[in-house]
Amino acid sequence: MINFKIILKILGLLVLMEGLFMLFGIPFSLYFHEDDLFPILISSLITAGTGGFTWFLTRNAAPDLGKREGYIIVSTAWIFFSFFGSLPFVIGGAIPSFTDAFFETISGFTTTGASILNDIEAMPHGLLLWRSMTQWLGGMGIIVLSIAILPILGIGGMQLFIAEVPGPAPDKLHPRVKETAKRLWAIYIIFTASEGILLMFGGMDLFDAICHSFTTMATGGYSTKQASIACFNSPYIHYVITIFMFLAGTNFTLSYFALHLRFDKVWKNEEFRFYVSFILGFILLVTAGLWITQDNGLEKSFRDAAFQVVSIVTTTGYVTADYLKWMPALGVVILILMFTGGSAGSTGGSIKMVRLLLLFKDGLLELKRLIHPNAVVPVRFNHRVVSTQIISNILAFVVFYMVITGFSVIIMGFLCSDLDTAFGSVAATLGNIGPGIGAVGPAENYFHLPAFGKWFLSFLMLLGRLELFTVLVLFSPSFWKK
Amino acid sequence: MINFKIILKILGLLVLMEGLFMLFGIPFSLYFHEDDLFPILISSLITAGTGGFTWFLTRNAAPDLGKREGYIIVSTAWIFFSFFGSLPFVIGGAIPSFTDAFFETISGFTTTGASILNDIEAMPHGLLLWRSMTQWLGGMGIIVLSIAILPILGIGGMQLFIAEVPGPAPDKLHPRVKETAKRLWAIYIIFTASEGILLMFGGMDLFDAICHSFTTMATGGYSTKQASIACFNSPYIHYVITIFMFLAGTNFTLSYFALHLRFDKVWKNEEFRFYVSFILGFILLVTAGLWITQDNGLEKSFRDAAFQVVSIVTTTGYVTADYLKWMPALGVVILILMFTGGSAGSTGGSIKMVRLLLLFKDGLLELKRLIHPNAVVPVRFNHRVVSTQIISNILAFVVFYMVITGFSVIIMGFLCSDLDTAFGSVAATLGNIGPGIGAVGPAENYFHLPAFGKWFLSFLMLLGRLELFTVLVLFSPSFWKK
Repeated sequence: MINFKIILKILGLLVLMEGLFMLFGIPFSLYFHEDDLFPILISSLITAGTGGFTWFLTRNAAPDLGKREGYIIVSTAWIFFSFFGSLPFVIGGAIPSFTDAFFETISGFTTTGASILNDIEAMPHGLLLWRSMTQWLGGMGIIVLSIAILPILGIGGMQLFIAEVPGPAPDKLHPRVKETAKRLWAIYIIFTASEGILLMFGGMDLFDAICHSFTTMATGGYSTKQASIACFNSPYIHYVITIFMFLAGTNFTLSYFALHLRFDKVWKNEEFRFYVSFILGFILLVTAGLWITQDNGLEKSFRDAAFQVVSIVTTTGYVTADYLKWMPALGVVILILMFTGGSAGSTGGSIKMVRLLLLFKDGLLELKRLIHPNAVVPVRFNHRVVSTQIISNILAFVVFYMVITGFSVIIMGFLCSDLDTAFGSVAATLGNIGPGIGAVGPAENYFHLPAFGKWFLSFLMLLGRLELFTVLVLFSPSFWKK
Repeated sequence: MINFKIILKILGLLVLMEGLFMLFGIPFSLYFHEDDLFPILISSLITAGTGGFTWFLTRNAAPDLGKREGYIIVSTAWIFFSFFGSLPFVIGGAIPSFTDAFFETISGFTTTGASILNDIEAMPHGLLLWRSMTQWLGGMGIIVLSIAILPILGIGGMQLFIAEVPGPAPDKLHPRVKETAKRLWAIYIIFTASEGILLMFGGMDLFDAICHSFTTMATGGYSTKQASIACFNSPYIHYVITIFMFLAGTNFTLSYFALHLRFDKVWKNEEFRFYVSFILGFILLVTAGLWITQDNGLEKSFRDAAFQVVSIVTTTGYVTADYLKWMPALGVVILILMFTGGSAGSTGGSIKMVRLLLLFKDGLLELKRLIHPNAVVPVRFNHRVVSTQIISNILAFVVFYMVITGFSVIIMGFLCSDLDTAFGSVAATLGNIGPGIGAVGPAENYFHLPAFGKWFLSFLMLLGRLELFTVLVLFSPSFWKK
């Protein structure tokens, strides 16, 4: 039997904490004398109250926590977070429609960054802080999920990281998750604080610096400005954010090693080398394209290229340049990069580097296998043989990703006025990126979509964020049997 | 060592036969008194002469024919065919540019149907017959390749058909290929003749009936009319062609069984059931969409839907309705159908039903495996367990297909004025379909693309037609070692 009591207990505790985190907006509400104080307080009360009460009712649940419970907690946590997290926007009417508020909030917690706001600067500061914080908390959740929980659930090749994670022996789930989370959150907080300070050096005010460092480290991409990072006309700020987006898209275990000065471990990691080369290659390509076709000079071409390539590859979704106005080939490059994603164990979404790398290796070896059908030609990763089970799991993941993209584009096709928008909205939400192409491009937003489209894309954000299988497994009859 | 002599011998023989087939255009040249008699004769002479001379020089080659020789023969045969096959167009100047003529011919032999002709009706009849015949011969080649040769080479799950093929024991390559080819060609010819007769009943003249039945059975899609099948304003003709496109997209071994009245074998085949359900499902969807959004009535909506869905799924590429003028969602449906393809063992290209079906099954089972990680959950096809090796081969194929699509779209992005054209041209050539979307849509053609684009798309046609690996394996260093 599934232990629903422990599920409710953990969810209750998480929602209680969410309610408390909401209060962080209050100093800004007070300082700016805006009318979001009351909505935040009420929302916090409802959220923390509901969470606390649920936790109280289930406090003596049996501590049996198995795989099934894990799947259910992970899949529903994001939904509950988004439901309660949208209250501050709805109460008080900053975002009048619940559909819009939920979309904006799940887009935050999934670190997607797809927005329905037409005038971000008009939002009160307390709510903008909460909006940025949904992404920051979502990023925290993802780090634990991808490094400590998904490997145990066996999702899409994440097993490969088990051995790499610093922490106690991998056989004890509970202390391990706790210890790993603590160490990685420390890095997350150090990086966030460092970015905030560096941004303030560049002239950004405290509020914007906090919000942008929150959403950078989460690879979320929510900005406090309608024009996103393009609003800050400072090369320094662009470069700082580019570097921290890159760090946010790096496996946090590697950052842990780097901060302990064990650079050998970092450079020996094949995914990291692939991630660096991949990004550099595409920055070069796009820089060349922009330099030749635009009159912005080499530095600006390089800066725009680096910023947008890193922003899309890491699935952050910040914008300094409207890539839809670039030459078509570069727009295509951006679209394709939406299917890459950052490293596994980062806050980035989409398919992710390690899967692309292993697929690439397996594909090349497949050619070898055709020529020597009786030879055993295993894929290696970080000098270790990868089991065929993991490879086929990864292949299935990618194929699922493509098939879900295909069917979703058909569904969105019925709701959008053109193919680009249908394709862009699916790629940008399933990949947790934010801005897409067409009418949901970097200069636009998702407000104009019909309500059904917003709910459907919300589902895609969740699906993408939880590596597909975590959610899909709940739809499998064998999950619920016995 | 690779036995190049036997390779040349077989290629020589094939090219000799190609030269003889060219002569079939002559009766039409004579009847219509057009100026293509001389170009056809000269081309036939050059082709048959070169082929015959090569064959003569290598006639006593050692008969050792291994896998490597197989790969080289298959990959280069289509290139040689297209080179010599373009001569009738170049000599005499019907298509002045060699790039264009080669594109048109490889598009024929790969049964793609992407054309560079701006005024098809202005072409002399002898050349139009040869143009249709390139597709018909290409279709013949593909039947042998996919049912008799690829399974032995172990390409992309084709092994699954070995047991199903009627013919002598599968351990003897040579007599087996010959016998299988004979039986399947008989069906191919019976179907072609039947369609031609039925089309003439519908009022089509002999010449058009021959050309269209040639290109239907090859799922090629070359028409003798600039407006394709839309030119024939006869529901009867549309339905006849729809049915024969469907047959051409069916595994020819199943047609063999059906003609021997063993319908149980046909219906028991899982791929066939999937193919039928898949097509019916999408016809219903598109019919509904067209009926609601257009004023054409139910019959015309159904007819257009059935024709276009079958035309794209089977990768034929005939056109009765410009799907780019449909509502965007239906355009998306058509684009996605470009990645499906007909059945394995048919003349259709693209990914193919059996692969999609097995991926779908494997994906669902992956969910089961996640819940029960220690259970052995194999994929079954036609009641038999499919080895994990074949599944991962199929997964690798699909991933390769997607990655090649992605990179090709980037390359075409540099040559096209918009994303749709880049995407459409790649999907339509790699999938051997013909018309794409954007500026290479059903009402347009490929003439306006730059020369490099035409050569690149020619390569994609070949790659798609030969199931990727057959060509890619030649680029693998281990192929050439030892």
